[in-house]
Amino acid sequence: MRFTIKRDEFLKGLNIASRAVQNKTPVPVLTNLKLDLNEEGLFITGSNYDLTIKTLIPHNVENNEIIRNYKEGSTLLNSRIFCEIIRKMESEEVTVEVIDSTLVTISDANSDYKLNCVRPEEYPDLDLDPEEISLTMTTAEFGLMVDQTAFAASTKEQRPYLTAINLEAGEGILTATATDSARMAKKNMSIPEGINFNVNIPARMMSEIAHLVEGTSSLEISVSNKKALFTFGKTIIATRLIAGDYPNTRNIAPRIVNHTLEVNAQSLIKAIDRANILSIDRENVVDLIMSEEGIEISAKSSQVGSAVERIDNYRYEGNPLTVSFNSEFVVAAVKALGSEDVLFSFVGEMKPFVIKNPSDESIIQVVTPVRTY
Amino acid sequence: MRFTIKRDEFLKGLNIASRAVQNKTPVPVLTNLKLDLNEEGLFITGSNYDLTIKTLIPHNVENNEIIRNYKEGSTLLNSRIFCEIIRKMESEEVTVEVIDSTLVTISDANSDYKLNCVRPEEYPDLDLDPEEISLTMTTAEFGLMVDQTAFAASTKEQRPYLTAINLEAGEGILTATATDSARMAKKNMSIPEGINFNVNIPARMMSEIAHLVEGTSSLEISVSNKKALFTFGKTIIATRLIAGDYPNTRNIAPRIVNHTLEVNAQSLIKAIDRANILSIDRENVVDLIMSEEGIEISAKSSQVGSAVERIDNYRYEGNPLTVSFNSEFVVAAVKALGSEDVLFSFVGEMKPFVIKNPSDESIIQVVTPVRTY
Repeated sequence: MRFTIKRDEFLKGLNIASRAVQNKTPVPVLTNLKLDLNEEGLFITGSNYDLTIKTLIPHNVENNEIIRNYKEGSTLLNSRIFCEIIRKMESEEVTVEVIDSTLVTISDANSDYKLNCVRPEEYPDLDLDPEEISLTMTTAEFGLMVDQTAFAASTKEQRPYLTAINLEAGEGILTATATDSARMAKKNMSIPEGINFNVNIPARMMSEIAHLVEGTSSLEISVSNKKALFTFGKTIIATRLIAGDYPNTRNIAPRIVNHTLEVNAQSLIKAIDRANILSIDRENVVDLIMSEEGIEISAKSSQVGSAVERIDNYRYEGNPLTVSFNSEFVVAAVKALGSEDVLFSFVGEMKPFVIKNPSDESIIQVVTPVRTY
Repeated sequence: MRFTIKRDEFLKGLNIASRAVQNKTPVPVLTNLKLDLNEEGLFITGSNYDLTIKTLIPHNVENNEIIRNYKEGSTLLNSRIFCEIIRKMESEEVTVEVIDSTLVTISDANSDYKLNCVRPEEYPDLDLDPEEISLTMTTAEFGLMVDQTAFAASTKEQRPYLTAINLEAGEGILTATATDSARMAKKNMSIPEGINFNVNIPARMMSEIAHLVEGTSSLEISVSNKKALFTFGKTIIATRLIAGDYPNTRNIAPRIVNHTLEVNAQSLIKAIDRANILSIDRENVVDLIMSEEGIEISAKSSQVGSAVERIDNYRYEGNPLTVSFNSEFVVAAVKALGSEDVLFSFVGEMKPFVIKNPSDESIIQVVTPVRTY
């Protein structure tokens, strides 16, 4: 294998594929990137088994020659070191050449690097074949779906399926759900009829993919009972699924509502953020004290002191009610709604409550209160 | 004590004084800021004993009323929590009032905070009286002096005086020296005749002070055998000194020079930075290979590979020479010189070498080579 390549295009491809590579892995060969050069162009593959990313740099892009003076072939190169060299080089083009099965040279006008490499046969076979059930959406829709839900997934591995976003397709609707059991985010999207699946995809990977698809216009999702594939531009990403039935979350949002509060999202976030300075004894727990006469956020520490924040411009309906909650959960939920005003619906002080964008029925956030003593 | 104060001016003062406060301290009262309001204005003091900062917010600045509706008095308030509250409040003015010796209220239109406070008598007496020997310089001169030397001080506490910048004044010259024994930076400045002192000030504090004086035009330094005082604008900073005789560094820079190299600073830094990717076996050690035919930076790892960087546009005089050095030391020294080109002077492969700005005799950097095997 040998090629001379435009460095900026090369770096874009390396930056995509290397995001799947972990420096510490029980499978040392996966610290490498796989480079395959053939008549289509240069394929770069990175993987940690759970996540595999394969991207193509074509020989020519819009009549610009990206790769020239090449000879087909494959090799495996340490991802971290190889990417760092290419990133720090300064010339417009770099030349990569496999000298023998154990040595690769990387060079430009002023730099000569020799890197030990690994034979391509040692790389595992990774399943990147497309699946039958597939779905196309814009990357904007996908990004919003992930942003509005992923934060609510658990970061603890005790119940692995809670670290996932559950994607359920059926009856023309795709529902993304994430919950760590103390809060839940659920987003609905219209999709074509006849697409049916129910899979759990690690929330971390969904966020990673949302980041990687930024800048492209649409992506295709295809799923089986083993893996999910995300295809966009010249890149294909495969993620493992998390086994196990996802909990039934259909009935978590209460049907009866006894108290509703509509407030400006920014005023609420800032008031919570300030009052939270005094949430020391019960970490991050603040009280929302509601009546038709006024809305307050309060927090108290016996050692340090107390905070009371009054919120102007609210609309409250119902008897007076005080609810204590984890301020981080409520702030994250309110931010995820992305709306100017937010609407809270309460059943009672210890029942899960709903936070919505008053003008967008596709997304709901549910938070369970914290017991106060 | 009671006052209503413009929040942005208050915050500026708090941000200055709180930089001396450490959250973890063997003296719990020093986690507080001291507020003293009298006819001059509001004094805010923060200290960790090693460093004390006292700043004044006057009642009026350029005919703008900063403090109004006030009653004189003093109190001690937890620095971290109090500063966070004032920073996160949103109104133009805030009101602070000592209710009794244990409780302070902080309020604006929407927020009411109550903080437990400590009686001012519990704060230690801190010596901030000016000393006789004093010196005025511009903050630009002071900042440059610190930037060009502080990085070369040791960060290890085994030999405390090596963590200091040594400031020696005499014969119309102020010399700042920092060394960790493997490298040295030395800066000279002209000062008035008749000022004589020799003190060791912790380099970390010199950097902190250089940061704090940014934005003012000049500062006054006054020293005794116990402390150094830095006065600028409405702020006074006291630092402890480090006891012990500073090593004699007058003869470290070699007098005989057998090899000289002049190169572009940026080309050199970038070449070292790239080659350093392969400095794995001997961490951060690269070789500088010099002859009249060419200049190369090289690094090698038996496991990973090797790097060779050629540097264009050099001027070398002397027999061929190879010197191995800690790349971080050389890059830091070259950056500190702040010049387009840098001039290296070598005696031999294992002798300390000098790096200079060819057009500025006031600063020299010395680095000791690393032994190669």
